[in-house]
Amino acid sequence: MITYEKDGAAIYRESFATIRAEAAAGLAGLEPVLSRTVVRMIHSCGMVDLIDDVVASEGFGPAAEDALKAGAPIFCDVNMVASGVTRKRLPAHNDVLCTLTDPRVAPLAAELGTTRSAAAMELWRDRLEGSLVVIGNAPTALFHLLEMLEAGAPRPAAVIGVPVGFVGAMESKDALHEHPLAPPHIIVRGRRGGSAIACGAVNALASEAE
Amino acid sequence: MITYEKDGAAIYRESFATIRAEAAAGLAGLEPVLSRTVVRMIHSCGMVDLIDDVVASEGFGPAAEDALKAGAPIFCDVNMVASGVTRKRLPAHNDVLCTLTDPRVAPLAAELGTTRSAAAMELWRDRLEGSLVVIGNAPTALFHLLEMLEAGAPRPAAVIGVPVGFVGAMESKDALHEHPLAPPHIIVRGRRGGSAIACGAVNALASEAE
Repeated sequence: MITYEKDGAAIYRESFATIRAEAAAGLAGLEPVLSRTVVRMIHSCGMVDLIDDVVASEGFGPAAEDALKAGAPIFCDVNMVASGVTRKRLPAHNDVLCTLTDPRVAPLAAELGTTRSAAAMELWRDRLEGSLVVIGNAPTALFHLLEMLEAGAPRPAAVIGVPVGFVGAMESKDALHEHPLAPPHIIVRGRRGGSAIACGAVNALASEAE
Repeated sequence: MITYEKDGAAIYRESFATIRAEAAAGLAGLEPVLSRTVVRMIHSCGMVDLIDDVVASEGFGPAAEDALKAGAPIFCDVNMVASGVTRKRLPAHNDVLCTLTDPRVAPLAAELGTTRSAAAMELWRDRLEGSLVVIGNAPTALFHLLEMLEAGAPRPAAVIGVPVGFVGAMESKDALHEHPLAPPHIIVRGRRGGSAIACGAVNALASEAE
């Protein structure tokens, strides 16, 4: 006979209480929207020390929150991110879009000499203005976003930039954070990141409910 | 002008080479199928030290690999896991199934007094025999699997047990690893885990291709 907590609401409560206690020092100085975003990012990966690597630009929290309330579409680099956004938390039935498997992407990637992840973003242009961009996987997508902005592309309201991995991930996040044209953004410095952390951030920004 | 690697194949090659170099000591003793599984789990989360927490039971690698080749369905606890399985890597067009949003699940959870994640597994019984079970998120799902096995449920061929988080995750993985009825399995000890790590394991087991 195995004994364990089976009440989903109690599991959430206890999880968030543990995170708030263990990350108390780091959370103390944060505005509420950013605090709950970091808490959910930690929750998604099981690592309290993630907070040491999270950096948000001035005004990121309110910019992302307001955009979602205003109905901004959420552009995701991979389907796994789109799949992890909890639809019932979204404040305005926001569209959650991933164009990676669009049939136009493979030929476009060949034409541009880049990855499919980067090429997929070219299909976002029409609705990029004021959107929430979420890069949970591909450093090339984050680099390509910066190139698009340099070339005069419409400006997202906010960017969650948390690609993961060993080639370009760290560099792409540093590039976003240091770029003069960067929209308000949140990143995780270093190699860590990924779809789950990205979704944790989106789901926190979408609703105050725990 | 930003300079970065834009060749997807080169990015993969360099990533795996970095992981194999940095995790060389831990990978050295592993059979090939397990080695490539651990490499992809590391790749999915950006953390080489994940290898210190990965534990596989005797025979897990071949059991999971053979099941997939034989056409085993892949049962996932959450849609994010199902979404991250790369379909073209699957050796037998294996079904990838998640029942969490099935309309029967919410009433079943209420009736059983457990989470939706746990109740969703009740709908797997008909095809559980010889399947690959992938728990990337919910500790309660992993605990419930053990309860089902104790009650005589059909036996999966292998289990990827990597729920993440602060309440029950560690305990559920330890319970799987120590359970006399546990099928061949791989776990990540402690709080770490998640959908991306789960998918990394599935995608590695599904194909030798890098």
